[in-house]
Amino acid sequence: MAEYKDLDRKVIKLGKQVVRMCTEAGSGHPSSGLSLVHLTTALMYRVMRYDPKNPWNDASDRLVLSAGHAVPVVYAAYCDLGGVVGWPERPSELRFDDAMSLRDADSVLDGHPNPAIGFPFFDAATGSLGQGVSVAAGLAAAARVDGLDRRFFCICGDGESREGQVWEALDFLVDHKLTNVRVIFNCNKQGQSDYVSEQQSAETLARKAEAFGLEVKVIDGHNWDEVFDALTAEAGDKPMVIVAKTVKGWGVNELQSADSHGKPLKEESLEQAMADLDARAAELGVAELEDTPAVELTTPEPSGKSTDGPVSAGSFSEAIAAVGLDADLEKKGKLATRRAYGAALAALGADERVVALDGDVQNSTFASYFAKKYPERYFEARIAEQNMVSAAAGVSAAGKIPFISSFAKFLVRGYDQLEMAAITNANIKLCGSHAGVSLAADGPSQMGLPDLGYMRAFAHAARQDGVSAIRVMLPSDAVSAFKLTELMANVDGLCYMRTHRPDVPVIYEEDTEFFEGGFNHLIDGEDLCIVASGYMVHEARRAVDVLEKKAGLSASLVDAYSLPLKTDEILRIGDDCRGQILVIEDNYVGGVGDEIAAAAATSDLGVMVRRMYVRDIPKSAKTPEGTLKMVGLTADDIAKAAQQVFDQSEA
Amino acid sequence: MAEYKDLDRKVIKLGKQVVRMCTEAGSGHPSSGLSLVHLTTALMYRVMRYDPKNPWNDASDRLVLSAGHAVPVVYAAYCDLGGVVGWPERPSELRFDDAMSLRDADSVLDGHPNPAIGFPFFDAATGSLGQGVSVAAGLAAAARVDGLDRRFFCICGDGESREGQVWEALDFLVDHKLTNVRVIFNCNKQGQSDYVSEQQSAETLARKAEAFGLEVKVIDGHNWDEVFDALTAEAGDKPMVIVAKTVKGWGVNELQSADSHGKPLKEESLEQAMADLDARAAELGVAELEDTPAVELTTPEPSGKSTDGPVSAGSFSEAIAAVGLDADLEKKGKLATRRAYGAALAALGADERVVALDGDVQNSTFASYFAKKYPERYFEARIAEQNMVSAAAGVSAAGKIPFISSFAKFLVRGYDQLEMAAITNANIKLCGSHAGVSLAADGPSQMGLPDLGYMRAFAHAARQDGVSAIRVMLPSDAVSAFKLTELMANVDGLCYMRTHRPDVPVIYEEDTEFFEGGFNHLIDGEDLCIVASGYMVHEARRAVDVLEKKAGLSASLVDAYSLPLKTDEILRIGDDCRGQILVIEDNYVGGVGDEIAAAAATSDLGVMVRRMYVRDIPKSAKTPEGTLKMVGLTADDIAKAAQQVFDQSEA
Repeated sequence: MAEYKDLDRKVIKLGKQVVRMCTEAGSGHPSSGLSLVHLTTALMYRVMRYDPKNPWNDASDRLVLSAGHAVPVVYAAYCDLGGVVGWPERPSELRFDDAMSLRDADSVLDGHPNPAIGFPFFDAATGSLGQGVSVAAGLAAAARVDGLDRRFFCICGDGESREGQVWEALDFLVDHKLTNVRVIFNCNKQGQSDYVSEQQSAETLARKAEAFGLEVKVIDGHNWDEVFDALTAEAGDKPMVIVAKTVKGWGVNELQSADSHGKPLKEESLEQAMADLDARAAELGVAELEDTPAVELTTPEPSGKSTDGPVSAGSFSEAIAAVGLDADLEKKGKLATRRAYGAALAALGADERVVALDGDVQNSTFASYFAKKYPERYFEARIAEQNMVSAAAGVSAAGKIPFISSFAKFLVRGYDQLEMAAITNANIKLCGSHAGVSLAADGPSQMGLPDLGYMRAFAHAARQDGVSAIRVMLPSDAVSAFKLTELMANVDGLCYMRTHRPDVPVIYEEDTEFFEGGFNHLIDGEDLCIVASGYMVHEARRAVDVLEKKAGLSASLVDAYSLPLKTDEILRIGDDCRGQILVIEDNYVGGVGDEIAAAAATSDLGVMVRRMYVRDIPKSAKTPEGTLKMVGLTADDIAKAAQQVFDQSEA
Repeated sequence: MAEYKDLDRKVIKLGKQVVRMCTEAGSGHPSSGLSLVHLTTALMYRVMRYDPKNPWNDASDRLVLSAGHAVPVVYAAYCDLGGVVGWPERPSELRFDDAMSLRDADSVLDGHPNPAIGFPFFDAATGSLGQGVSVAAGLAAAARVDGLDRRFFCICGDGESREGQVWEALDFLVDHKLTNVRVIFNCNKQGQSDYVSEQQSAETLARKAEAFGLEVKVIDGHNWDEVFDALTAEAGDKPMVIVAKTVKGWGVNELQSADSHGKPLKEESLEQAMADLDARAAELGVAELEDTPAVELTTPEPSGKSTDGPVSAGSFSEAIAAVGLDADLEKKGKLATRRAYGAALAALGADERVVALDGDVQNSTFASYFAKKYPERYFEARIAEQNMVSAAAGVSAAGKIPFISSFAKFLVRGYDQLEMAAITNANIKLCGSHAGVSLAADGPSQMGLPDLGYMRAFAHAARQDGVSAIRVMLPSDAVSAFKLTELMANVDGLCYMRTHRPDVPVIYEEDTEFFEGGFNHLIDGEDLCIVASGYMVHEARRAVDVLEKKAGLSASLVDAYSLPLKTDEILRIGDDCRGQILVIEDNYVGGVGDEIAAAAATSDLGVMVRRMYVRDIPKSAKTPEGTLKMVGLTADDIAKAAQQVFDQSEA
């Protein structure tokens, strides 16, 4: 077929480069790359509507390489195309030979796709498998919100399709009729340790995808006609899955063996590999053909939309009134932090950048206020948290500000996806509701308890720009929940907020300001300093009362509402309180207590830090007081511990 | 149909009790329970081969209630049956009225199924959705190993089936032909916040399950003939899925509304609910019928197998030789901890209780040694970590000792499942390979970095018996990896071990003993104390050399290989080293450094603790040295920091 000669020539060129660059790197997955050489070439040189010179064009089609390990073929093509990398303010153009820098410490060609280090062709870091379809779905959701006619191609491995998240993502595509996503299953039959299961064969995948309600095309992934027909077929009513049968290690004999996954050729095998590909070129009749750019691309106009500028939630009382909570608050003098989150989210929705997703618990997290007001910007993700987190990464990559919510316990389901979003520098705001033990009656299967240990790990891991990979917000009352929700919308990057089930008193004036890393010194005392967060601030306040009334002790109380925390200032308060700090948390170890203790252990002040946290796996009790009692965290428990701390400091 | 009259009578009785007990508790999910009243009654009074008086019978059929929130109906039935709860050494028999203790702080009837608090009818804590099919699959895998003819019924909600893990589990069932599992999808059409998606309708679920290769029966879940036909149908070549169409809130009008999920009736609605059910009884012609036990159960003989006693891996050198690593070790003087794990696992396999699972990376984690030697006890879980973790919980519930392995990074995928296993007190041993940054070239998408923050949260959360919910093992060399693998097999409960990719020198004699919470004081010095773990022990050893040679400083070196750690003893070593400790880790914050710093902050010794850990999201580099340099953790970086610590202590 004459019309593909230049592409055949290109495939040989890229194939050789893929083999060479992995050998040069001493690692990488050349066989996976080769299985995709035709599909990638078709997409990147012909099908996608984009401009390799402007990867920031927000109206472009995009490729999500879910099978991240196959990335050398994309790098080879992008270098061949002179693609631009870096940042808008300091772009740089790749040359063909730059591909050989694969995996170098100072190369943007990371081992797996990684936009955050300056490879903006990609929207998401991939490599932990099974997440790409969700990212593409999120990009598509955002494109619908923006009214942009963009297409999203996602390449997913056959073995990779074992990940349940892939099927969550297909459900999401069908639910939301995201027909501008085209999922390509690369069926090269080989996984890492073995051939893939019959459950992941091309035939079974086709059958499964059809049952999930998608349109399915099964093709030979090395046949140009079939490849182009499938990639350019008009989108119908259903999202489309292309099941592409490919050859792992296409064109290179040594790379076709079952144990060649993730192994580069040794230096001494290179010559034979080149000869294999030359022989392929001869078979294809392109051995003598000059390499041409072979590019036939159309470039869409950028949308011109700005994604900059602050987002406002307005005033607390107006936002609360807008969702009908004012009367309730007035009557009870109390409001749950989760309701205030919902009110803030609904208020922030006035800005079109704000998008929300929730996992079938919007009536518990109170994302419902937003969903009702802005249904076109609310994407119900159902009971599938992994997909929800990765989809939010896609929404974020499109310049939106996605808020996602579920029970703190259930968000754990998406922790790996969250880490990939952190690597990506995605701009997602998570709200984990029903955190801690105050959920009570439902028991430990619904309680968010190890979340602070995990999130704090990221609070002290810096992105390339020095910003915390995840910032943690721990509101104690409705005002702080409201303000911190607004704060999250206005900082770039991942944020995690904990909210709680029970109604709690409002302790802040509505004009109180809240800051990253901040805390509030609520009560000034001198005998010891109690630091609490979230729900526990209320128990701690009662404890301060008890201490004063029963023991005549004057305790300071600090509401530490954010991580990473300004620990220096808290240590100084502790220093003023006879050098004694007692930290109270309703989670497992690893949160605010460790934050302050670790600072104390490097400080010359000699402040002592005791920690009260959840030290036992809880069970159900009918009331928050019941579970707090069970884990030793009631106001009385705190007062008792504080008294001991004081007595020891006296001794 | 006369033959079901006693069961119809029972269903009315149980239905009333479900409604009452949730109202009494003030929370719970009566409507979900009612949708299952016929299926539960059929299973618990007729179909299951078990003895409510001996829930520890290891040859019994079992029910896994994946839709854990529906548990009140199971409790009601089990109380009606006089089922036994507690522990083998102190069993107690429930009475019908005990159901009213639902969710009490001192009741074994927890908000969601929770065997660990003394409800041995269940094998796994459920309630975080989508995990039960995997648990049933693990139970079935163990039954095959033991040659036991047991059946496992798993009830999963329709909305719940959105969780990708459910589909991972179905793949696993088909892969391993686990035909003794019967999955029941309870299609009551309602989720929490809305009706379920069309993607989770009975029709779509049937189509999907068929495409996944299962035999599918669609039934009316309130029709006795259909229920019994499906539950008792002979198992064929394929595992079976029963798609049961049910009515949420069956029998009680008020509980059939779309917003009734998870809401108990108010006290004042009880009378009408009882009247509704009485009317149902009248329709069924059983209003006047006496309640009978209605039980027709057969009880299998317990297997008589013992699950007690120590497990031995034998000697290090023999185990290494048995997998052909001896020559390699001899030649290089080095061996990767992941290989030693594999060798230990293969050696432990001599004990039939040991079972292994891996997620398509057995040739990287070296579970391959076991897989080759004991294929009948190796279950390849493919690229689906969530299912792997929950399946291991099932294997553990059958009295086996499951070891599961994948990259530390990919195990994050199963953290929620791991937490459910922790709540269950499951006896799973996890090995996360390629931990830290020494993986290097593949980049951050493959590196285990926040794992210690998460695991340490559980290291300080106690089970009912006071044992740490997760014990963490951090081997630094092949001998310690080997010994700690053996240690994990011999302690009851969840353990997590980190192994690393690179070969490292062997630093321990093969008769060294290792203990829970232990550490080794490798080098005795006096100017400061360096504490390191895992791979970093080798960098720290080099740093100690540098300090001695370049600065004439004498540093102590401690290998802290286990969490929770005996910090008191380490603080004393620090105290002897001018009160200065420097902790080195190749993970994000939240691990050994925080462990020691937190202890120092409550200690009177006044020891200072500085922490070096991964403070930046890394990227690829070609060598471990390259990534260590990137994150400031080379031997030279450590030596430099140690020098500063020393200088400050002098100042």
